[in-house]
Amino acid sequence: MAVDGRAGGEVRVSRIADLAGVSASTVSKVIHGRPGVSDGTRRRIEELIREHGFQKNEKSEAVPIVEVVFQSLDSLWALEIIRGVEEAVRPHGLAVTLTEMQGGHTPESAWARQMLARRPVGVIAVSAEFSEAQLAQLGSRAIPLVALDPTGEPTHAIPSVGATNWNGGLVATRHLVGLGHRRIAMVNGPSEFLCCRARLDGHRAALDAAGVPQDRKLVRTAPLYHDGGRDAARELLRLPDRPTAVFAANDLQALGVYDAAREAGLRVPHDLSVVGFDDLAFTQWADPPLTTVRQPLRRMGAEAAGMLLTLAAGGEPDNDRVELPTKLVVRGSTAPPP
Amino acid sequence: MAVDGRAGGEVRVSRIADLAGVSASTVSKVIHGRPGVSDGTRRRIEELIREHGFQKNEKSEAVPIVEVVFQSLDSLWALEIIRGVEEAVRPHGLAVTLTEMQGGHTPESAWARQMLARRPVGVIAVSAEFSEAQLAQLGSRAIPLVALDPTGEPTHAIPSVGATNWNGGLVATRHLVGLGHRRIAMVNGPSEFLCCRARLDGHRAALDAAGVPQDRKLVRTAPLYHDGGRDAARELLRLPDRPTAVFAANDLQALGVYDAAREAGLRVPHDLSVVGFDDLAFTQWADPPLTTVRQPLRRMGAEAAGMLLTLAAGGEPDNDRVELPTKLVVRGSTAPPP
Repeated sequence: MAVDGRAGGEVRVSRIADLAGVSASTVSKVIHGRPGVSDGTRRRIEELIREHGFQKNEKSEAVPIVEVVFQSLDSLWALEIIRGVEEAVRPHGLAVTLTEMQGGHTPESAWARQMLARRPVGVIAVSAEFSEAQLAQLGSRAIPLVALDPTGEPTHAIPSVGATNWNGGLVATRHLVGLGHRRIAMVNGPSEFLCCRARLDGHRAALDAAGVPQDRKLVRTAPLYHDGGRDAARELLRLPDRPTAVFAANDLQALGVYDAAREAGLRVPHDLSVVGFDDLAFTQWADPPLTTVRQPLRRMGAEAAGMLLTLAAGGEPDNDRVELPTKLVVRGSTAPPP
Repeated sequence: MAVDGRAGGEVRVSRIADLAGVSASTVSKVIHGRPGVSDGTRRRIEELIREHGFQKNEKSEAVPIVEVVFQSLDSLWALEIIRGVEEAVRPHGLAVTLTEMQGGHTPESAWARQMLARRPVGVIAVSAEFSEAQLAQLGSRAIPLVALDPTGEPTHAIPSVGATNWNGGLVATRHLVGLGHRRIAMVNGPSEFLCCRARLDGHRAALDAAGVPQDRKLVRTAPLYHDGGRDAARELLRLPDRPTAVFAANDLQALGVYDAAREAGLRVPHDLSVVGFDDLAFTQWADPPLTTVRQPLRRMGAEAAGMLLTLAAGGEPDNDRVELPTKLVVRGSTAPPP
């Protein structure tokens, strides 16, 4: 697509401009995310572009980058995904561009405008939720989008990649049940993360399968960080009938549970078993080394990148949703109950 | 700068083409990093461009990204730097693009070609060393470069950011000396890292200042990873007169030293004191929490980004070399010798 008066693009831009009753330069501004167009006009033009199937940017106009949008860039978890994307796109001469939403679920309005100025080959959204308007902006420029661990209601037809979180939760708790535990707590992440909801459901399924009665007091929700796990575990360990095992929704929380156990004078695993989720590198160096559910984060990043490249080339991914396998890694933090 | 037949650029391109005795399209290929030009011609054109002060790309031609080149993206260390750069460039409407050299010190030849196609506002090279040819390619396109923890001989006038590594090494070892240690080993990183060399020199200065004789057997070089620290410490702990304390050049190595101590039946800190370097988040959750020298990695990333933005705006940074302060963080891994 060319918008600067060159062949092809000019015809399409002027057609959209005619239909919208605006100038070609206004259409061009909308396409390139430049300011100076009212919201109403912008929306009308985007709708027309979608309806009339505006052609994708010519290759020479797209910048050879793949954009990865994170909620926050504050854990090794993010870095593993970045590496997977980077390794997958590098052979195609593409680099990874990162943006961070500073903890929010939906990119700021400035993000879309700036992203359009970068003209990436495509966007991978990690734990992010896009507004309808943002999806329209991407759609109207034919910039493909793939989600990794999406949040919110999966109402949009965005291809996504995750791990088998439900099965991971099932296997983690089944491991604890198998060791003889009956009082098994779960420290879960915030409910807007579908991956966390799936882990909780798997945990409950394992309890049900083993005929272990569920105690609502043993399920806590906390931020997916060390402090979140520590604070939730402090409360759990103060219960009159305290749990003998805790399954945490990620490794950072699990190490927070270690700290709460130490404070309470409990030894891991002799007095309290702990299972994490992710298998970040440093969990094997914790004392004791953490039993955890491994997510193939690098492979998830690579898979998302592969889907994106397929879409960018005008193809369709084989599947709308891919879940890569999780795996229980038993180390030193789990043992039979005291 | 325009090279597609628009005003201004055409004149300069044809001037360079005349001087080089080649076509304007050959000059254009070199400027945009496209293939199809022999190495000799490419070098000649780049030299002419440098000599004749080719104008910087017009703002509208640069893509609003800052490129960060890493040797490897495999530690939280890298992520902290990325966050610092991202936070500093975001208010300017810029995003961070990452490339990885897969452990090499010098970017592959394909990197420069691809980077030129991305047309970033500037490049931050982390622990990287550029070849003269690559520096010429950057220089001829007026793409500014800032180094963070440069490797190799600092012969080029590239502005750089680091931490006060020498002082960090001094303070780490002084702390151990102050606790009464005399047999203090250092596990250092590879010698091509200037930051590691500075830490070693600081370590030695602290020993000299305290009148502690230096034993060459107590200085080991190992990769800056967990396994590197573990393997080096295994050898150190097998010495007849083993050290009572180990200063490691980074936190990953330090946690590797923990493992070697455990294998040898030694308790940290009662039998062996350990000091790390970096203060990555997870060191405080190690058991015992690690005494380490904090590097302000996020601030270093932000500082490098600030220098780059100054250069990109046509200014000169106030200083060619900035070292941000390191700080000893005393936790549970250091104690008087047994």
